[in-house]
Amino acid sequence: MNQEFLQQNLKNPGAAAAFAGKNEPIAPNVQTFLGCDKPFEKADTVLFGAPFDSTTSYRPGTRFGPRAIRGESFGIETYSPYQDRDLEEDTAVFDAGDLELCFGDTNIALRQIEERVGQILQHQKRPFMLGGEHLVTLGALRAVAKRYPDLHIIHFDAHTDLREDYLGATLSHATVIRRAWELVGDQKIFQFGIRSGEKAEFLFAKEHTVLQPFDFAGLESVCEQLKGKPVYFTLDLDVLDPSMFPGTGTPEAGGVSFMALLQAVKEVCKLHIVGLDVNELCPIYDPSGASVALACKIVREILLAL
Amino acid sequence: MNQEFLQQNLKNPGAAAAFAGKNEPIAPNVQTFLGCDKPFEKADTVLFGAPFDSTTSYRPGTRFGPRAIRGESFGIETYSPYQDRDLEEDTAVFDAGDLELCFGDTNIALRQIEERVGQILQHQKRPFMLGGEHLVTLGALRAVAKRYPDLHIIHFDAHTDLREDYLGATLSHATVIRRAWELVGDQKIFQFGIRSGEKAEFLFAKEHTVLQPFDFAGLESVCEQLKGKPVYFTLDLDVLDPSMFPGTGTPEAGGVSFMALLQAVKEVCKLHIVGLDVNELCPIYDPSGASVALACKIVREILLAL
Amino acid sequence: MNQEFLQQNLKNPGAAAAFAGKNEPIAPNVQTFLGCDKPFEKADTVLFGAPFDSTTSYRPGTRFGPRAIRGESFGIETYSPYQDRDLEEDTAVFDAGDLELCFGDTNIALRQIEERVGQILQHQKRPFMLGGEHLVTLGALRAVAKRYPDLHIIHFDAHTDLREDYLGATLSHATVIRRAWELVGDQKIFQFGIRSGEKAEFLFAKEHTVLQPFDFAGLESVCEQLKGKPVYFTLDLDVLDPSMFPGTGTPEAGGVSFMALLQAVKEVCKLHIVGLDVNELCPIYDPSGASVALACKIVREILLAL
Amino acid sequence: MNQEFLQQNLKNPGAAAAFAGKNEPIAPNVQTFLGCDKPFEKADTVLFGAPFDSTTSYRPGTRFGPRAIRGESFGIETYSPYQDRDLEEDTAVFDAGDLELCFGDTNIALRQIEERVGQILQHQKRPFMLGGEHLVTLGALRAVAKRYPDLHIIHFDAHTDLREDYLGATLSHATVIRRAWELVGDQKIFQFGIRSGEKAEFLFAKEHTVLQPFDFAGLESVCEQLKGKPVYFTLDLDVLDPSMFPGTGTPEAGGVSFMALLQAVKEVCKLHIVGLDVNELCPIYDPSGASVALACKIVREILLAL
Amino acid sequence: MNQEFLQQNLKNPGAAAAFAGKNEPIAPNVQTFLGCDKPFEKADTVLFGAPFDSTTSYRPGTRFGPRAIRGESFGIETYSPYQDRDLEEDTAVFDAGDLELCFGDTNIALRQIEERVGQILQHQKRPFMLGGEHLVTLGALRAVAKRYPDLHIIHFDAHTDLREDYLGATLSHATVIRRAWELVGDQKIFQFGIRSGEKAEFLFAKEHTVLQPFDFAGLESVCEQLKGKPVYFTLDLDVLDPSMFPGTGTPEAGGVSFMALLQAVKEVCKLHIVGLDVNELCPIYDPSGASVALACKIVREILLAL
Amino acid sequence: MNQEFLQQNLKNPGAAAAFAGKNEPIAPNVQTFLGCDKPFEKADTVLFGAPFDSTTSYRPGTRFGPRAIRGESFGIETYSPYQDRDLEEDTAVFDAGDLELCFGDTNIALRQIEERVGQILQHQKRPFMLGGEHLVTLGALRAVAKRYPDLHIIHFDAHTDLREDYLGATLSHATVIRRAWELVGDQKIFQFGIRSGEKAEFLFAKEHTVLQPFDFAGLESVCEQLKGKPVYFTLDLDVLDPSMFPGTGTPEAGGVSFMALLQAVKEVCKLHIVGLDVNELCPIYDPSGASVALACKIVREILLAL
Repeated sequence: MNQEFLQQNLKNPGAAAAFAGKNEPIAPNVQTFLGCDKPFEKADTVLFGAPFDSTTSYRPGTRFGPRAIRGESFGIETYSPYQDRDLEEDTAVFDAGDLELCFGDTNIALRQIEERVGQILQHQKRPFMLGGEHLVTLGALRAVAKRYPDLHIIHFDAHTDLREDYLGATLSHATVIRRAWELVGDQKIFQFGIRSGEKAEFLFAKEHTVLQPFDFAGLESVCEQLKGKPVYFTLDLDVLDPSMFPGTGTPEAGGVSFMALLQAVKEVCKLHIVGLDVNELCPIYDPSGASVALACKIVREILLAL
Repeated sequence: MNQEFLQQNLKNPGAAAAFAGKNEPIAPNVQTFLGCDKPFEKADTVLFGAPFDSTTSYRPGTRFGPRAIRGESFGIETYSPYQDRDLEEDTAVFDAGDLELCFGDTNIALRQIEERVGQILQHQKRPFMLGGEHLVTLGALRAVAKRYPDLHIIHFDAHTDLREDYLGATLSHATVIRRAWELVGDQKIFQFGIRSGEKAEFLFAKEHTVLQPFDFAGLESVCEQLKGKPVYFTLDLDVLDPSMFPGTGTPEAGGVSFMALLQAVKEVCKLHIVGLDVNELCPIYDPSGASVALACKIVREILLAL
Repeated sequence: MNQEFLQQNLKNPGAAAAFAGKNEPIAPNVQTFLGCDKPFEKADTVLFGAPFDSTTSYRPGTRFGPRAIRGESFGIETYSPYQDRDLEEDTAVFDAGDLELCFGDTNIALRQIEERVGQILQHQKRPFMLGGEHLVTLGALRAVAKRYPDLHIIHFDAHTDLREDYLGATLSHATVIRRAWELVGDQKIFQFGIRSGEKAEFLFAKEHTVLQPFDFAGLESVCEQLKGKPVYFTLDLDVLDPSMFPGTGTPEAGGVSFMALLQAVKEVCKLHIVGLDVNELCPIYDPSGASVALACKIVREILLAL
Repeated sequence: MNQEFLQQNLKNPGAAAAFAGKNEPIAPNVQTFLGCDKPFEKADTVLFGAPFDSTTSYRPGTRFGPRAIRGESFGIETYSPYQDRDLEEDTAVFDAGDLELCFGDTNIALRQIEERVGQILQHQKRPFMLGGEHLVTLGALRAVAKRYPDLHIIHFDAHTDLREDYLGATLSHATVIRRAWELVGDQKIFQFGIRSGEKAEFLFAKEHTVLQPFDFAGLESVCEQLKGKPVYFTLDLDVLDPSMFPGTGTPEAGGVSFMALLQAVKEVCKLHIVGLDVNELCPIYDPSGASVALACKIVREILLAL
Repeated sequence: MNQEFLQQNLKNPGAAAAFAGKNEPIAPNVQTFLGCDKPFEKADTVLFGAPFDSTTSYRPGTRFGPRAIRGESFGIETYSPYQDRDLEEDTAVFDAGDLELCFGDTNIALRQIEERVGQILQHQKRPFMLGGEHLVTLGALRAVAKRYPDLHIIHFDAHTDLREDYLGATLSHATVIRRAWELVGDQKIFQFGIRSGEKAEFLFAKEHTVLQPFDFAGLESVCEQLKGKPVYFTLDLDVLDPSMFPGTGTPEAGGVSFMALLQAVKEVCKLHIVGLDVNELCPIYDPSGASVALACKIVREILLAL
Repeated sequence: MNQEFLQQNLKNPGAAAAFAGKNEPIAPNVQTFLGCDKPFEKADTVLFGAPFDSTTSYRPGTRFGPRAIRGESFGIETYSPYQDRDLEEDTAVFDAGDLELCFGDTNIALRQIEERVGQILQHQKRPFMLGGEHLVTLGALRAVAKRYPDLHIIHFDAHTDLREDYLGATLSHATVIRRAWELVGDQKIFQFGIRSGEKAEFLFAKEHTVLQPFDFAGLESVCEQLKGKPVYFTLDLDVLDPSMFPGTGTPEAGGVSFMALLQAVKEVCKLHIVGLDVNELCPIYDPSGASVALACKIVREILLAL
């Protein structure tokens, strides 16, 4: 059998190893995010997708986010000239694929996410979730907050997400940070880039969170303050300007640039990140694919910076 | 003031009347389905939209169906050469607009629909709902079945929709006819055009419903049998072949033609229809607009045939 | 009857009031721009659409602009963190819907617009028109200039729009500011952001208008100079860079940013604005919806700044 | 110089000939419909485009039709297995490119078309116009009717196009056949495939034209009757079912199939066709390109059948 | 560890088994065509993708075909009401994923395909390839013809694909059946549904292949004749009418219906099929997804019929 | 004959002249880039298209670039306010249309390009090629380097393009600058804006080329250094940020702005440019048309600056 030919067609060494002993000439189709093909045991970070958008009230479709990110990741390189690091050499990530979540019953879906994150934490690994709508963060936070009582949250977003309820539902993309606040308490949530919300939400933020509107001003001193503490990082990609990231359900003009986000992300990743997610990519709204490509690039940069 | 000019810009005589007494030169923007502008009291049918797709597991977007149908209806004519009737002369329909439904909590959304249908029935009018995903039918059925204990259901669809549960949820587009069966009982549901489902669903149908796969064979004798009985008519537009109706979440090759559907619909509308819906239009998947236009045309033909 | 349910489904208090006395449980479908639901008598500004693009020579479709803006406005918030003001609390706007304009006979269409603006002015209200192609501005200007002899015009655009005629037509999107100049005379028109035109147009501008190419430099001093004078403000959205606003017929690289436009618009709105329009949104060319969302946001900011 | 190389890169023998004498190695870029590259003098048919859609009230874009047909024609073959004939061997067609028409002033545009058709007729050649919206037919008809007093018209369409006026305009895509009737008189127009119109239009047709709704029934006997008489053939492509031809502004379900149209077209082309047009292709609404490809194929079949 | 949860998230039993022994709670992301998750050793058919379209001269994109088919297959059911069979119960298929083929050097790419098919045949399994452009068939045929000297080919297509060379290349989607003929000789290739080609190709077919234009007439007797002989079946999906299958590079009006194709495919699959492929799906040209869904359905029906 | 009418419909004076002597009223359809209609003999620059993308491994479609640029160029003006120059007055360019290149055999295609560029150089004219994928540059470079032994290359791009081979092919869009280096040698290639590549490529660049990552820093001094030397300028448009230029196969966040590129291009065009190309526009990925419009504008500015 042509060994070279086999190797060429196997992107996942783990799978290759599994099948090598059995003298299998043709391996099954294992698909991971670019370069995230370490075996589970050797990984320090576990990537997985949470394709859920059931509470999205405006324009749905973020459910297609994780699949798009994984599939299109092969359009970028493993090497980053920004950090001079390479996914294949400098990271150890296992990609567990997408959860198959319940649509229409939010409680079940959140419980499924919480269980998955719990499993990952139990193996002392860092969960890295790809959304999905922003509500998926709540499932992850419930598991992480259980393990890390003094949890802090860094939140990049265009929207406050601080409503008490939305269209009659308390579990919603528009309420997720409010629910997060119920988990971690006052002054534990640090919000950046915010430029949309109800008046009442901004008033709530004044009392209970630390909110920087429009940009990342003050991020450095926040990071200084959080050094050594367990931090969950949730990145709603609509914090970016829609010119750079049109592929999202609720584009909001006046956002940050990719370069500003890249700088901020590198800053945050120096902290003790115990869990994180990247969410709200909605591929269908950007036929150019530039939004998916950008999401892939940010995920790569985060993995390299962690 | 230029009276003619005013008239020209008012599509809703009801609204015009309401404002005439107040000597208002400029009327507000009242939008209805083409020709469905009778005052509520004079209407025998009440049209409304149920823009909900929270349980859609595959490709969402039917929430945009009612709005698209209403907006694009002005691209067709009020007159039908198929029936030689005209919406403006031969119907009395009030368009109540879209409900604002809860996303992410299916129970709340179904209750909202049930209440709206109950209101309409209470005024001795016929509810005509535009979906939305197929699950919205359940909300309407709950109200209709309460009022008409001997209710029968005619169901056009590509899919059986007879699952016991789907991805952990019992309230789902894939279970709606199973839930309907729980309301009305055995041999009360007549399914046509079905060409997709699990093996178990087809077995269930054999015992509990009357299922005609692929086409409308036998419809005439079913209609004969149902004459005079209260019938709810639910039309999942994906019963059509995707060539004619690509604008739906789950296109299923091998469907019926528009002309066959038109013929079947005219047959059904001769019955005692006490409620009905047209659902599963997902405009975003058909950029040509042909699917929306077809939906508008079918709604027109139904209104003329009722 | 469930009063709460009714309220929840009524976005237009005016309509609600109209029907309350008649004990109607179900209201008709009144659609307005977000928060622009004041009764006509109480409004100081009247919004309306002019869906016309008959002279567009390159890529048509701005006729769909007003409808898109109105429909998608519910995707943004009524509150602006930029101005700390709220549409529901701080404005009094009536939305009169779209005119139904003649296609193919430009003279008739312009007369229809002129009549509508005349009606609004006659009631001492400020007309705010949503285009449509830029030529619709001429219809509005004719009515406004009649009422305000000393009218000045502030014009944001990528294009000079100063041709004498275009493809044989003197009434054209490419000639609208030239026609405006015929109405108001020399040095009354202030053009900003201009980066495209024929050589002859730039030469014409040198003699007859005040033209600032590429950006908003000098806007502050112009506003200083116009203080107290009646000003018509016409905003061609293609003044924005296509990265931020691809949804327009003639995208022209090298435009201003959203934040720059926001700043400039706030400046202009401090003046005595007696009429205004926002035009040239062509939704079909931006499937992401970001352009429509931006247009909604700019309309909101203008309404809050007026 | 490499003669073979040159030949390979020249699609237009006429141009090649023009430059051969000058020993020019590199030819200008002459673009024609596939195989329509005969010199003007040797051609019996002259193809040209009329990219105009100014009166389109619903969805514009047919202006892009001629360019799309010409450009995409190279995706089909010159040979037809349906007729066993070949464009290169069996036809003599000159392609004059597109007219540059006035937008916004319908009278000017129609006059431009009339002049062009007049020129072609003057050279004893048959004009074959590619629309554009259906109104362009009127420009051509005016020139043809002048030359052929006993003109008959065969009209394939989904719509009657028999309105007296539309939105205030007498020159409109919706009135074009009414205007044609004014030119040629009673019982000279034969309409097929019609399935949409106002009641009044159908009543008008009963008295003044010969109208076959829905299909081509009776075409054969009409052709029998018209043998030897001068006939203008106008083909509105929306006569096709939208499943086969979604790329049009007003898709109307229930149309004819491609095979039925092909059969009918071959029948008509046996007559004495003194002018003809194919119109209402709107490429933008069919991203698959199937509509453009079908239009190219129908144009090829017509050219081969003439 | 939650065993049920694990099961729910594992679609590939083979992978599950591989990891079960290692006590791994979280499995890697194995993606297969719906229900094609048997271990390699137990499979009788091996599915794989050949994402190549380098010689496509008109509109590229079939390289995305296999990935789309695999990904969207989860939108259809494993059960077929047409055959009353189920992928999970009635088939044994291993999905080996996509080859990573060389772009720009056709010889290398064809060799890669030939090697893969050779490997599969060596294990006495049936190769089932998903294209890609039609040229990929040649790579497979080279391996299959080596093993089965008396090979016959059944070819469904809109195009003859019988050119000697195309734009200077002898290896091209337009020449693939000519190259196949060089492998198997005269009267071994049976072509159905053909409706496009050069005159010379049709003449070639008359002498060297059996060609049925336009439809499947005569298929039954051909199948009778081929009973027991080794047959390679190549299905170019553009044999379908573009109304049903717009998602292809060269849509050709006048094709067969899905129901006709289904019938024909079931007929062919009764033969001794030693290799097969389905090709020319180009997902990008059909935003409705109906073409991909149809391709998935045909692949399912073939797998069930084999 | 109506001379004015004729003039109005002729965009190409050269063609007009050719036919004037023959007293032909109707001219053939000559299509050029806006204002590039000088006769070949009088031109100093010859524009032509190289519609090839056979080695594109990720997302194909740049083959449609030249046609889109030529067709859409009529949407911009001939006059540039940036340089106060006009294409019609200040340039002498002949547009030779597109080559018809071989797909699937890269060697043939490159040879075709090399021959065409050789022809142009032989006539002492400057070749200006519109791609196509970046590999087409190699064909041009082979001809140019033969004529100018001391050739230098200025290269704007997001990607290094310095691989030794890619997926088994040495001739690939990803290897083109490596192949260029083999032609011209060390320190002759100046790369700007680079932000993606393999680690090995960046290491290669350190030794053999001059590479400025991310932006145009240092361009001025490079231009100083190259004054008077023969320079080939190759502009891969993906050097732009995807927000401004989404219409490309491999969008790479973090690019330069249009204004920065314009500035850089003007700088480069002051040099002794002996050949140049603009490549990697892939129109299909940007439905707004903004990318094509930007490409047209850059081509115009380059032509004016040369």
